[in-house]
Amino acid sequence: MIESKIKSTVRDVPDFPKQGITFKDITPILKDPALCQEITAALAGRLKGLDIDVVAGIESRGFLFGPALAQLLNVPFVPIRKAGKLPYKTVQQSYDLEYGTATIEVHEDALLKGQHVLIHDDLLATGGTVVAASELVKQLGAEVAGYSFIIALEFLNGKARLTPYSDNIFSLAAY
Amino acid sequence: MIESKIKSTVRDVPDFPKQGITFKDITPILKDPALCQEITAALAGRLKGLDIDVVAGIESRGFLFGPALAQLLNVPFVPIRKAGKLPYKTVQQSYDLEYGTATIEVHEDALLKGQHVLIHDDLLATGGTVVAASELVKQLGAEVAGYSFIIALEFLNGKARLTPYSDNIFSLAAY
Repeated sequence: MIESKIKSTVRDVPDFPKQGITFKDITPILKDPALCQEITAALAGRLKGLDIDVVAGIESRGFLFGPALAQLLNVPFVPIRKAGKLPYKTVQQSYDLEYGTATIEVHEDALLKGQHVLIHDDLLATGGTVVAASELVKQLGAEVAGYSFIIALEFLNGKARLTPYSDNIFSLAAY
Repeated sequence: MIESKIKSTVRDVPDFPKQGITFKDITPILKDPALCQEITAALAGRLKGLDIDVVAGIESRGFLFGPALAQLLNVPFVPIRKAGKLPYKTVQQSYDLEYGTATIEVHEDALLKGQHVLIHDDLLATGGTVVAASELVKQLGAEVAGYSFIIALEFLNGKARLTPYSDNIFSLAAY
């Protein structure tokens, strides 16, 4: 079963990025090409029946599986990046961090009005970045068709912040 | 032909990241799933006959095609990241930028001694980051088997800095 394979492969790193946080390190997954293929296929399987025109992946770890997922769904991939990285005209969205704020952006011609956008990242935590990504989709007149994550840290209640955008929230391994 | 397809799809953005530089924007490529598949297949094709145990991709744009390339070659993918992003123990390498320095790192258990590593990024410019990535590979006792890029800006002479590590330098579109 994919969930147990993921959980037995992910590495728990204590006290990263700071004391008291246990980080889920997905780099051991990336070392296993068969598991990577299985993950992409399983994500695509969960999305069956959803109308998806575009996969948008969040920098940087959303770039690891997002393009392969878009490939499998045969749709465009759109990178959502940290401010200052995208070269063309962008729309921006800021969001709160524990200390200060962060800003992400997307090219203003990345999405067409009315397109159904799947937002992808490797891991759902509190959902702050994913909410900001959802606002970017809305800023361009497109719609959030759903969310896909490899891992969801459900005890952080990120899902509750995403349901106003879409109820289609999928993950392969939950903690 | 793949080179003309890439060149007709890439967007030139003048004066990014600063006055006088024309940036090659690959986001239009990512919007074309058929071209993405063709690019990954063409990269793998160029590598035929090379002994590659691992694909190492450089954050962030090396994550866009690196994992798919590793998948196609059926080998592990290793992320080389900006300092502070990888959760486990790392080795680091700093390199000079026009103003100041930057540091990249890799998990210390990402590579095994003697492994043949293909280093991948989307674009070869002056080669500074790629040289630093090559030094990381050497720090872990592994060998650079070669380099793959989608685009090479040959007028910047990056290749000359890579040949001390490996002569196997492949790109699909050259300027």
